[in-house]
Amino acid sequence: MRTLKICLAYDGTDFAGWQVQPHQRTVQGVVEEALLQVTGESIRIVASGRTDAGVHALGQVASFATQCTLPAATIARALAAEVPDDVAIASVEDAAEGFHAIRDARSKRYRYVLHDGSMADVFRRRYAWHYRQKLDAQRMHRCAQALRGTHDFSSFETQGAPREDSVRTVYELKVHRGAAEEQDFVYLEIEADGFLYNMVRAIVGTLVEVGRGAEPEAWPAAVLAARERSRAGVTAPPHGLFLVYVNYDRAPPACAAAGG
Amino acid sequence: MRTLKICLAYDGTDFAGWQVQPHQRTVQGVVEEALLQVTGESIRIVASGRTDAGVHALGQVASFATQCTLPAATIARALAAEVPDDVAIASVEDAAEGFHAIRDARSKRYRYVLHDGSMADVFRRRYAWHYRQKLDAQRMHRCAQALRGTHDFSSFETQGAPREDSVRTVYELKVHRGAAEEQDFVYLEIEADGFLYNMVRAIVGTLVEVGRGAEPEAWPAAVLAARERSRAGVTAPPHGLFLVYVNYDRAPPACAAAGG
Repeated sequence: MRTLKICLAYDGTDFAGWQVQPHQRTVQGVVEEALLQVTGESIRIVASGRTDAGVHALGQVASFATQCTLPAATIARALAAEVPDDVAIASVEDAAEGFHAIRDARSKRYRYVLHDGSMADVFRRRYAWHYRQKLDAQRMHRCAQALRGTHDFSSFETQGAPREDSVRTVYELKVHRGAAEEQDFVYLEIEADGFLYNMVRAIVGTLVEVGRGAEPEAWPAAVLAARERSRAGVTAPPHGLFLVYVNYDRAPPACAAAGG
Repeated sequence: MRTLKICLAYDGTDFAGWQVQPHQRTVQGVVEEALLQVTGESIRIVASGRTDAGVHALGQVASFATQCTLPAATIARALAAEVPDDVAIASVEDAAEGFHAIRDARSKRYRYVLHDGSMADVFRRRYAWHYRQKLDAQRMHRCAQALRGTHDFSSFETQGAPREDSVRTVYELKVHRGAAEEQDFVYLEIEADGFLYNMVRAIVGTLVEVGRGAEPEAWPAAVLAARERSRAGVTAPPHGLFLVYVNYDRAPPACAAAGG
């Protein structure tokens, strides 16, 4: 058997998330269907993480085993022609034997996009959370720095999804307002060694409380220390969230050294 | 009767164009339905121009007469809440008596967006023409300058749509490649005193032939001079086209003086 690594983007709007589910249109489902067309094999693929319904990906990575002997670039072109137009195949390449898209990931980066313009943006409505109050992006950035480093992120984990442990390391966390034509958009970028269920969306839902002035700058640090989900803000809606990339090779960003 | 002027944006993807048609979802139709909800009147609105199916607007302008006495800003908020989420109301304001959205327009500006990246862009697929060959944007810009000024644009008018005359004045015509994350996008911006049917899309379909190197830089000028639609390139698809604004007040761009 040969192990292949596939990198892909998708618009999550019309998908019930990544993972195959009966009678639902899922990203995994349409990619596996395309692989069946291209290789003739029923192939199960494993993603670096299962994005939820409505969540987008710029650089999702998945791996699968196949007996197909076509060159990887040929498979990539054939898959690109086979997938629906809300999925795009960036690359297919041979991976080292035993490569596993989840286990081997060193870090992952997500982006969350907020739109705080007073008029709705019809072209970004699927790709940004339209927030009805003006946000102070610099204030959000400052208070977010308390979440960098290695912490127990239980306060930012949706209940009912227990894991062995809820300690993760956030290497980078930046909030900034767009420039020029993007000035009504606020971007959050976060890179970590892993994420708890709904962690980015709970962090966003917490930071906006500071951004709109309802909570003090010290609040996110207090929420983190409480290790209790009920202390944090709401879970931000999925359609503002993008999986930007999964990093298998590089060292995580240097600010990792900043620690807890 | 009172005359109101409304400015709105829309994502043209799921509309059969601006104009009301039986059994079709149109922008005019959903805005008139919203006006009925807000004012209780069956109101007919007139747009600055009827955009085709799939064509978008950042700043379409329409006018209508009403007996409604609510303040314009109140009507704007009520309409914004009433229209579907692929339409956004920018403003509603009282217009001078007799204001007419078509007749009083001094110039209109359109943008056409091309994507020439090798990988499909799932987030822009509704808003850009994915062109499969690399385009030389500077070359397109240079040859496009021959279309500036006052000319008979018959070569760029879809047949079956006769007008009294096909002379229009193009005040500005620019082609440029995006910067940074936009580097796989080529933008055409055109402002004119009016446009023939499918004129922007026929100009784009012609300029790409020069951009990909299939025709010499002198070609668009020769096509223009021929006054024959069959000499020009294809009609570019609608989903890359945006009505940017309609200008009622300002003098058109200074380069109008450049003439023919």
